[in-house]
Amino acid sequence: MTQFVGVKDMTRWITRDGAPAIIRQIASVIENDLARWESFDKIPRVASHTPGGVIELMPISDNDDYSFKYVNGHPTNPARGFQTVVAFGVLSDVATGYPVFMSEMTLLTALRTAAMSAVAAQHLAPAGAIRMAMIGAGSQAEFQALGMRELVGIQELFIYDTDARAVKKLRNNLEPLGFRIKDADSVEDALEGADIITTCTADKQRAHVLTTAQVGPGVHINAIGGDCPGKTELDADILHRSRVFVEFEEQTRIEGEIQQVPHDFPVTELWEVVTGRAHGRRSGDEITVFDSVGFALTDFCALKVCREATAGTDLQVDIDLVAEPADPKDLYSLLS
Amino acid sequence: MTQFVGVKDMTRWITRDGAPAIIRQIASVIENDLARWESFDKIPRVASHTPGGVIELMPISDNDDYSFKYVNGHPTNPARGFQTVVAFGVLSDVATGYPVFMSEMTLLTALRTAAMSAVAAQHLAPAGAIRMAMIGAGSQAEFQALGMRELVGIQELFIYDTDARAVKKLRNNLEPLGFRIKDADSVEDALEGADIITTCTADKQRAHVLTTAQVGPGVHINAIGGDCPGKTELDADILHRSRVFVEFEEQTRIEGEIQQVPHDFPVTELWEVVTGRAHGRRSGDEITVFDSVGFALTDFCALKVCREATAGTDLQVDIDLVAEPADPKDLYSLLS
Repeated sequence: MTQFVGVKDMTRWITRDGAPAIIRQIASVIENDLARWESFDKIPRVASHTPGGVIELMPISDNDDYSFKYVNGHPTNPARGFQTVVAFGVLSDVATGYPVFMSEMTLLTALRTAAMSAVAAQHLAPAGAIRMAMIGAGSQAEFQALGMRELVGIQELFIYDTDARAVKKLRNNLEPLGFRIKDADSVEDALEGADIITTCTADKQRAHVLTTAQVGPGVHINAIGGDCPGKTELDADILHRSRVFVEFEEQTRIEGEIQQVPHDFPVTELWEVVTGRAHGRRSGDEITVFDSVGFALTDFCALKVCREATAGTDLQVDIDLVAEPADPKDLYSLLS
Repeated sequence: MTQFVGVKDMTRWITRDGAPAIIRQIASVIENDLARWESFDKIPRVASHTPGGVIELMPISDNDDYSFKYVNGHPTNPARGFQTVVAFGVLSDVATGYPVFMSEMTLLTALRTAAMSAVAAQHLAPAGAIRMAMIGAGSQAEFQALGMRELVGIQELFIYDTDARAVKKLRNNLEPLGFRIKDADSVEDALEGADIITTCTADKQRAHVLTTAQVGPGVHINAIGGDCPGKTELDADILHRSRVFVEFEEQTRIEGEIQQVPHDFPVTELWEVVTGRAHGRRSGDEITVFDSVGFALTDFCALKVCREATAGTDLQVDIDLVAEPADPKDLYSLLS
């Protein structure tokens, strides 16, 4: 039987263990798996684009496990009462090809994205980072804040969003958790004294959420909203002043901020930093950009953490996904 | 809520409506959808190959619906008590990107493969076809026989498999349904007087299940077992004597029997025959080959048929796959 963790049980697990602790666990597995980058069979995710959004399949495997995630991105969904992003995923046994674990991944994606951002920031943010500017206060924002506090030490959040309701929501969710929060009047206002700038907006177009004039030396930009062909957040001039880090170059060339620069624009894959093959931040002055689009490896890690943490508990239930005839060559027997 | 049809409910549905009637329904939707071929966003399926097998994701969409299927292919699975192929699939609403329907597809794939083979045979098999040679008596065999009887008129089956137990299983399943069956001693024995030859073997290698000397004029070959890079069933010389028909040329060039011939070897996509742009069988003498690898469109059709036929009944159950926060920008609210 395939094991399933649905939304309610995912919620129970996160409530039981705490989002920060889970983000820490996923980050640790991501760091380990980045260090064995060559073990994975990697391809850019497979995207089906339609005028209103995109649906993506994100497979990856090593010699033992295979995973894929289904995820959409529909920027106009919230105006109609739907979420921008929903997701679910599956882990399979490579030896048999059987799916062995399935879970909702709307929540789990938020956790893994926060974990990946935090891993990058650990290597790229300026030492002693305290203040983060958050441009975009949507569904991912709380998780980003929690991850950056848990693993990087961020305590202050300067928040800006064109949707004032979203800012209020974010403040209401995070203030009780002890964050010092400022509602900024503008992007510029949010950037004041920021050690890290997180851009997490959803718009299927070329946007300039940040202009180069707004970005001072020494900052780390955690750019997670530009993740589709034709969907970017940063003024390209910022990239030319920065060292740019990516998850998986082949995919990021298609989807990331670096769509805007020539194909030979130099980037560093994060696994190279994790393994010491490349430097992370080298000085207090340089601008670093994590051009994050979301890569299958982090879903693979998140699914494994979730499966292990919920194994043997009632957070997992059987799902009747795989036919199991007594004679494996007699599928028809199920009908008679 | 996403609706789910599990294995037990799929079995109940097939038992309720009957496999032949469902194959007929799926075939009808396939024929309709082949006729609007240009409406679909099509890509070759995405395969993750490992030494023991392959795991594939098969997405496709039109302006309204998106579907994908997960399917594995592990030829050595039956020896270990597992099936060669298991599958499940999802239908989504293109407008929101939300998954709206999920089902097991091990059984459903068998039905849709039979439907696709039968649609092809309706256009390609010799008139008045009665006898089919079946090389390979595994899980798909019963469904192939039922589809070919329902839509093409096949009444006699000459069966050969290297696994005598599988032949016995197939006879035991089909004889009570009124088929006239002969257990053949060899491939050659099975081919005697055949109007249609179905090859459906599973071996991740270049095999020559049929040699050109064994194939006489006028026959239709329904070749469904060669469906992976490096996995073929037919002697290439057969292709050179035949007119070859495929589902989706771009994918079949990678996976089909035509891997063995140069890239400019002429093939006809089946939708061209369905719409009258190309001829099906032109004479009683020619050999036709349906070089079938399995294409996402047929899964799309099967999922739609299943969803519609089970809608509003207890064959569908809610599955807790998609988080639904009251405020679509407040995913975090689910945790507090």
